[in-house]
Amino acid sequence: MNILIVHAHPENLSFTSALKDKAQQTFEKLGHNVEISDLYAMNFNPVASQDDFQSLNQPDYLNYALEQRHAFKQHQFSQDIQTEIEKVQRADLLILSFPLYWTSVPAILKGWIDRVFVSGLFYGGKRFYNHGGMRGKKAMLCLTLGGRDHMFGENTIHGPIEHYLSSIQRGTLAYAGFEVLPPFIAYHVPYISHEARQKLLTDFESHITQLDQLKALEFPLLENFDDKMHPL
Amino acid sequence: MNILIVHAHPENLSFTSALKDKAQQTFEKLGHNVEISDLYAMNFNPVASQDDFQSLNQPDYLNYALEQRHAFKQHQFSQDIQTEIEKVQRADLLILSFPLYWTSVPAILKGWIDRVFVSGLFYGGKRFYNHGGMRGKKAMLCLTLGGRDHMFGENTIHGPIEHYLSSIQRGTLAYAGFEVLPPFIAYHVPYISHEARQKLLTDFESHITQLDQLKALEFPLLENFDDKMHPL
Repeated sequence: MNILIVHAHPENLSFTSALKDKAQQTFEKLGHNVEISDLYAMNFNPVASQDDFQSLNQPDYLNYALEQRHAFKQHQFSQDIQTEIEKVQRADLLILSFPLYWTSVPAILKGWIDRVFVSGLFYGGKRFYNHGGMRGKKAMLCLTLGGRDHMFGENTIHGPIEHYLSSIQRGTLAYAGFEVLPPFIAYHVPYISHEARQKLLTDFESHITQLDQLKALEFPLLENFDDKMHPL
Repeated sequence: MNILIVHAHPENLSFTSALKDKAQQTFEKLGHNVEISDLYAMNFNPVASQDDFQSLNQPDYLNYALEQRHAFKQHQFSQDIQTEIEKVQRADLLILSFPLYWTSVPAILKGWIDRVFVSGLFYGGKRFYNHGGMRGKKAMLCLTLGGRDHMFGENTIHGPIEHYLSSIQRGTLAYAGFEVLPPFIAYHVPYISHEARQKLLTDFESHITQLDQLKALEFPLLENFDDKMHPL
């Protein structure tokens, strides 16, 4: 397998970064190829703008998705976007590695999605969910957070973590056609002992060693909806 | 009222920008003071990093939330963050104005939250939800998207839009103590007629003219949970 890890933590010594390193080591030991986009190290620009295109189809009015479609046909993306697109195209498995910031991804990772998941290639027209442009590829989140696991779920203080992750897991990855594997979630990380962190690293190693046995999350099949996306 | 509109669209001529202008005009006509943070126009930096602090408490290991708490006590935030914090402190109502990118906010707005909603002031310890640092203030989303409204809700192709918005409405605004008013959502915007857009502008004007009559969204009260945040 070719594996792309997109990593978004400003501190190399962080536990989130240790999980990323553990993933790389484990996958390489299993014989896979691992590529890493370390967004902070790359100083990745997360702001979608007209500078993302080498030429504009409609210079007097920026419709970002339409410019993406144009740029995809004409091979006119800025170099940083083109490079990331090709990494995703090479990958069989995409891992997003991040600390949960405000119950979502840090802005630098949100911007990687905004700019790299381009219309025309990742989705477009009726090509989404199980017909999305990235069908055949897998994706998985690996995230750390400060909250405890008992704070998430039905009838808890914060409610189901799946709701917070739905923008990424459903609205982004599944929408673009990825098969989404269960996330690895490391709770309460800033407050736990060295031993507890070591156990999390071992748990993560098991999680990714047994990827084949993980049951993918379930999302809609377009076949169950009509042309206007009403349920059949 | 003092109203802060944080706006995140790269195109001034966009319908999202027209909604922002409509909000400003309407609120000013009603006698309110309106301040606008137009993030694209400001070239706002959305990437949380050690550069956000004029001095670091722990220079050899970046713990972003801990540095925020330190910087809050010592008045050591970078100037752009300090300016935005003061705008929020002045505001009685915060409006986030954005196009939905990948079922969430554009990266430039996510980064405004990541960097401005600082630990120590917006939350900290047991100060969250109805005890959050911004209690007494209101907040509201105004967003545009391409999808149709029948594509969202229970048993629809995309599921409830509230799930996608929960990172912002619950995990961010409500968590920080804001009373969250029902969002204004403009569906299918890139595909609708000029007349349909004019109707949306009128609908939005009604929405914000009758803010007092809008029932705030409901979120947990800390009084219903014990010290460890288990439900009582």
